[in-house]
Amino acid sequence: MTNNDEQLDQPLILTVAIIGGTGNLGPGLALRWTNAGYRVIIGSRQEEKAKATAKELNDKLDIETIQGMENRDAVKKANICVMTVIASAHQEVLESLKDDLQGKILIDTTARVDIQELKPPVAPSAARYAQDLLGPDVKVAAAFQNVPFHALLKDLDESLEMDVFIFADDPDTAKEAKMLAEAGGMDAYYAGDLDSALVAEGLTALLIAVNRRYKSKGGGIKLTGIEK
Amino acid sequence: MTNNDEQLDQPLILTVAIIGGTGNLGPGLALRWTNAGYRVIIGSRQEEKAKATAKELNDKLDIETIQGMENRDAVKKANICVMTVIASAHQEVLESLKDDLQGKILIDTTARVDIQELKPPVAPSAARYAQDLLGPDVKVAAAFQNVPFHALLKDLDESLEMDVFIFADDPDTAKEAKMLAEAGGMDAYYAGDLDSALVAEGLTALLIAVNRRYKSKGGGIKLTGIEK
Repeated sequence: MTNNDEQLDQPLILTVAIIGGTGNLGPGLALRWTNAGYRVIIGSRQEEKAKATAKELNDKLDIETIQGMENRDAVKKANICVMTVIASAHQEVLESLKDDLQGKILIDTTARVDIQELKPPVAPSAARYAQDLLGPDVKVAAAFQNVPFHALLKDLDESLEMDVFIFADDPDTAKEAKMLAEAGGMDAYYAGDLDSALVAEGLTALLIAVNRRYKSKGGGIKLTGIEK
Repeated sequence: MTNNDEQLDQPLILTVAIIGGTGNLGPGLALRWTNAGYRVIIGSRQEEKAKATAKELNDKLDIETIQGMENRDAVKKANICVMTVIASAHQEVLESLKDDLQGKILIDTTARVDIQELKPPVAPSAARYAQDLLGPDVKVAAAFQNVPFHALLKDLDESLEMDVFIFADDPDTAKEAKMLAEAGGMDAYYAGDLDSALVAEGLTALLIAVNRRYKSKGGGIKLTGIEK
């Protein structure tokens, strides 16, 4: 492989597709990654919804670079795909994008939380389920399960008072997810393989419980005592 | 019940028995609670070991009030019992103390971590298992699973840069555990029932993984964005 080929593999400006990017988490991440210099595409099952969210975000930043597309088209154009669909749509959306995701990196943010009972989810983790469904040619990581979306919308240039656990079966994929988290203003820690992402899903339930008890919205976590 | 009876039920100085208090977590908690004014008894399956740890801790604080006893005797004399045995001894120790624990509060710190694989533990949580084994007349809470014991040994008068999740089926028991955490210099958040303690057990595995990767020892967590 020549140097030139390597450059083609790694374009200078990465394009991130946010699958299901019209929900809660997607827009906040889109703003932060756009602000950090990434090209961002909002994906949705409905093209119109994707375009409307992209327009809102562009207006907020006074730019026009954020695009909105149907999920499949967004995935085709992206280097890294970030999945922020609601948990109940997880399987269906994965199946519909299986072909287009081959060869790509997928960062799964899904936390399956029983909003009533807030019980811990059962194995396998959503990300392990995704990896098994998509096959070995998709590089799956899990991250951002515990990010309170309200917090993302604050001053985009400020680092966030919250950390992100990264899960991946291989360190290179973890590194990509870590870079993306850091670009968004969050410290990130590689904490285990995709099976371990189950814990981060459960942690989302704990944070919701604590938010409810203290009538708060933005509960996140920070790691302490790590000498980085 | 007269006022006098109530007073007998709630002595001014609470006695905390630390079951399996000769290990890693027990001594640090013992120092902090003693420093906060609690009467502390170190329990162990071997009386001699309990007495030796108690002596070490007394020497450290230049006092003589920490006692060492066989676990059963420690439990009998205590208002609140805190269980810090290694996970592999959890069931056996619970069975041996079942009779003596009746009517008491038990705070279970057990995190069942597979040190090699660091996979998330499976349900039921250790604390739910304890509650089922001990029956409804023991008030079980779960806490302190994610506390890095190295951190406890620092300046005893300083608040710790870490938070504690509290799990209990009833709020009164959670309150007792919360008070004990706060007396030890940790902020504490009531995060769910005993089933949810499974998440905190898994979080211990994540923190160990992060500690290993960053060659650190004292990784803990703090909650952010909660308006307390």
